[in-house]
Amino acid sequence: MERVIVDMDEVIADPMGEMVQWYTEKYGLAVDYSKMINTGWIKGFPEQHQQECMQRLLSPGFFRNLPVMTGSQQVLEEINKRYELFIVSAAIEFPNSLKDKVEWLNDYFPFITWRQIVLCGDKKLISGDHMIDDHVRNLINFNGKKYLFTSAHNVDVMDYQRIDNWKEVADIFLG
Amino acid sequence: MERVIVDMDEVIADPMGEMVQWYTEKYGLAVDYSKMINTGWIKGFPEQHQQECMQRLLSPGFFRNLPVMTGSQQVLEEINKRYELFIVSAAIEFPNSLKDKVEWLNDYFPFITWRQIVLCGDKKLISGDHMIDDHVRNLINFNGKKYLFTSAHNVDVMDYQRIDNWKEVADIFLG
Repeated sequence: MERVIVDMDEVIADPMGEMVQWYTEKYGLAVDYSKMINTGWIKGFPEQHQQECMQRLLSPGFFRNLPVMTGSQQVLEEINKRYELFIVSAAIEFPNSLKDKVEWLNDYFPFITWRQIVLCGDKKLISGDHMIDDHVRNLINFNGKKYLFTSAHNVDVMDYQRIDNWKEVADIFLG
Repeated sequence: MERVIVDMDEVIADPMGEMVQWYTEKYGLAVDYSKMINTGWIKGFPEQHQQECMQRLLSPGFFRNLPVMTGSQQVLEEINKRYELFIVSAAIEFPNSLKDKVEWLNDYFPFITWRQIVLCGDKKLISGDHMIDDHVRNLINFNGKKYLFTSAHNVDVMDYQRIDNWKEVADIFLG
C-alpha cells in the first residue's frame, strides 16, 4: 500500500481563511494577498495588526475551531481506504496548537486514528510515496512524489506539480 | 551528518520511575517488575490500582515534571554537535502530554530546538541512520541501525543490539 503524507494548515484546515474573516469583521480593512507571496500569509495583513494576528494564532483554541477545506473530508476518507495515510503537521513551533490539532482531527476526520498523526518541527525525516503540502520547505527533502497545494503565499512557485483543490486530489489519487 | 533518532519515555525521561516513587509513597505496596515483561510498565502495579495509575498518566502535567535519565543531558548535548539529532516520541495517543513534552524538552534539553522534535503515533514513517528506543514496535520498521534501550518491560527481548544506559550511548556514538 502506498503511503500518502498530507499536511494540515492551508491543505485540510483553513487558518488563513479564519483569520481573514475575523480580521475584516473586526477592522473592516482589506487583506493584501499579493504581500503573502513568498513570505507567509500573516504578511498580507496590515502591518499595524500583524502582531495581534500572530498572538491570536499562538493562543490556545485557535487551531481547535478552524474551517475545513472544501472536499477534503470526503476525499481523504476514500484515500484512507486505498492508501496508508498520515497527517503530518509542522506544529511544534506552536505548543498551544498541539492538543487542538489532534482534537480537531478527531472531530472532522474521525476515520483518521492517533496512529496516523504526526506533529513535528522539520519534515525532512518523514518518508513516504506521496506528499501534499503548501510549503516548498516541507516538500524539498521528501523522498517520494511531491505535490504543492496552492495557497496565497505560494502562487509564484513554478517547479512543483501543483494541486489547486480537493477535486484535483481525487482525480490524481482516486481517479 | 548521520541522523540519530532518540525516544523520550524510558530513554531520556523516566515516567515509570516517577510513577513507582509516587505509588510506593501513597500505598506502600511493592511493584512487580516481572509482570511488566512483554506487556508494559503499568502492568507491574497491583491490579486494583492500575486504572488510577493510568488516569494519572493521562492527566495534564504528568509528563511536565518527569525525572531525567542519568547522563542523557550531557551525552545528547555532545551528540547534537556531531549528528543530526531528532527526539521522536509516540505521544499522540495522549493529547494532554503533547505540550508538556515540548516544555519539558525546552527545560532539560535547551540545546534541542523545536525543529528537532517529533510527536507521532506510529514511528514507521520516520527515517534516519540510528534509532534508540525501548520498544520493539518502534524499532521494527526502522530503515537504519536499531538500538534497544533497556527497560523493565523489554528485558526478555534477545534479537536487538541493547543499550543499558547513557554511558553506553556515549561509548557507541562519541567513543
